[in-house]
Amino acid sequence: MAGNVDTTIKSGFAGRLGDVRAAIEARLSELLPESGNERDLVALAMRESTLAPGKRMRPVLLVLAAEGLVEDGRENSRTIRRQAVDLGCAVEMIHAASLVLDDMPCMDNAALRRGQPTVHLKFGEDVAVLTAIALLSRAFGVVATISDLAATTRTELVEVLANTVGMQGLVRGQFQDLRDGQRSRNADEIALTNNLKTGVLFGAIMDMVWLISGAREDQRPLLQNFAMELGQAFQMYDDLRDRCADSDKDQGKDDGKSTFVSLYGEDKVKRQLALHLSSAEQALREVYGDDSTIAGYLRLIFEKAALNG
Amino acid sequence: MAGNVDTTIKSGFAGRLGDVRAAIEARLSELLPESGNERDLVALAMRESTLAPGKRMRPVLLVLAAEGLVEDGRENSRTIRRQAVDLGCAVEMIHAASLVLDDMPCMDNAALRRGQPTVHLKFGEDVAVLTAIALLSRAFGVVATISDLAATTRTELVEVLANTVGMQGLVRGQFQDLRDGQRSRNADEIALTNNLKTGVLFGAIMDMVWLISGAREDQRPLLQNFAMELGQAFQMYDDLRDRCADSDKDQGKDDGKSTFVSLYGEDKVKRQLALHLSSAEQALREVYGDDSTIAGYLRLIFEKAALNG
Repeated sequence: MAGNVDTTIKSGFAGRLGDVRAAIEARLSELLPESGNERDLVALAMRESTLAPGKRMRPVLLVLAAEGLVEDGRENSRTIRRQAVDLGCAVEMIHAASLVLDDMPCMDNAALRRGQPTVHLKFGEDVAVLTAIALLSRAFGVVATISDLAATTRTELVEVLANTVGMQGLVRGQFQDLRDGQRSRNADEIALTNNLKTGVLFGAIMDMVWLISGAREDQRPLLQNFAMELGQAFQMYDDLRDRCADSDKDQGKDDGKSTFVSLYGEDKVKRQLALHLSSAEQALREVYGDDSTIAGYLRLIFEKAALNG
Repeated sequence: MAGNVDTTIKSGFAGRLGDVRAAIEARLSELLPESGNERDLVALAMRESTLAPGKRMRPVLLVLAAEGLVEDGRENSRTIRRQAVDLGCAVEMIHAASLVLDDMPCMDNAALRRGQPTVHLKFGEDVAVLTAIALLSRAFGVVATISDLAATTRTELVEVLANTVGMQGLVRGQFQDLRDGQRSRNADEIALTNNLKTGVLFGAIMDMVWLISGAREDQRPLLQNFAMELGQAFQMYDDLRDRCADSDKDQGKDDGKSTFVSLYGEDKVKRQLALHLSSAEQALREVYGDDSTIAGYLRLIFEKAALNG
């Protein structure tokens, strides 16, 4: 796929992506200030776990998806960028909180995350739990106070976030994965858990995009289709990477878990991943037209998967 | 103190208190529905930890404080009751989540809570963590969607809740208590931690009351004074109970912790508790006048402490 993108466009695209990432990093750092007290380990762990080097895929996706719905040069395009960056930061905090908890001894019991000691190993389990709670609360606080956005919209965004995290969302996905992952699951059950673990957060991102951009009613289900397909593709990509030596996550931690890879084998999963990606691209075309920045970003995320395929 | 309350008034008061508690219990049960799937342990633990028999002190306080600011029979008195009950339920969920986490092995490592096995012992540590996260998210969702309340007010309530839980609030109190509790602390440090552990949530309750009742600007600091004094009094009461055989909490779990009781001895703490209570009552009189229901409730909470003193 990368071959389709000509070098000039790619360099403009890379520049834009760099801008978006820089805006997100800067805002995250503002929203999670250093406490100035070195004994304040929770504040330190909040920063370290959220600001650790990463692709910022979720917030980048949110910003590109929102900007793509607002015409360039329109008066409110700067406002939308700022609001999308704030929302993206909230989503990144939720994501970081979920990783801190997933790594704990009572969950996946991981020692490394992106090559660094996990939060509970570095700061203690008590700090890890409190860090996750504080990040979650901060995320809700950020969403509730986004400036220049109608209060009604802000309450809707808080509601979306609450449902995304709660017992019908990420919490349920993590629970099903922990408790049911070890037994043999059929394809439907795996797809459901995958959707709760990753698709729900992508769904929330796209709903947030729809809410702040004032997009048309008929675009909402298309954005949700995109999120669902992306979630399935991403979970397959993640399961494939778990078996791959150059992954930056703790390798083989899914050993013994019932995944699409253990059910179908790598080749079939790669073909299914390609199908989900193609459906995701189709949904994007219907909303954003051909050659949108967000479609370019989607190709970039999965470039490696495609090259390996 | 109890001697001042004549039997007739007390029985009307008991009836009103019973009504408020019943409304809270019923609404909590609606907001935390049974999942219908017995394997859904998180849903079960959310209900059990929140609906466990308890005094519902925080939500009762919230409802009485809000109703006291609205004249009886005023058109919106029913609406205020409903909104206060919803807010009270959110506060009770936050409180329940904090107890589930406090009991975990990496925190206070408690085996019993109100005579029952703690959530992590009954359901596992993973379920305990996920239950707390789900309760927290549910609380934010409930606050964001309270009906017949201006969206601006709802976003302010979400902000209050986020600050209350986060790294400047309950999280910080729990961290300071865990990490600094074992070393010798002076009175100022103990008062600060006590305020973060209990005063902040009372402060949030009174700010919520102020926000939904449309009370006067000059009443806000008075309600905050009341909350601060109540928080200090309550933490002292709790520390005294920890040494008392007929307490329903795990006895002696503060052994070795630096508290006002270990610093000053029981008698001096009882005298200080009485001073904080008297300041709390004074603040209530300035807002609610003499003989308010909420002042009656305050006396009821601390009746036992006074009788022992």
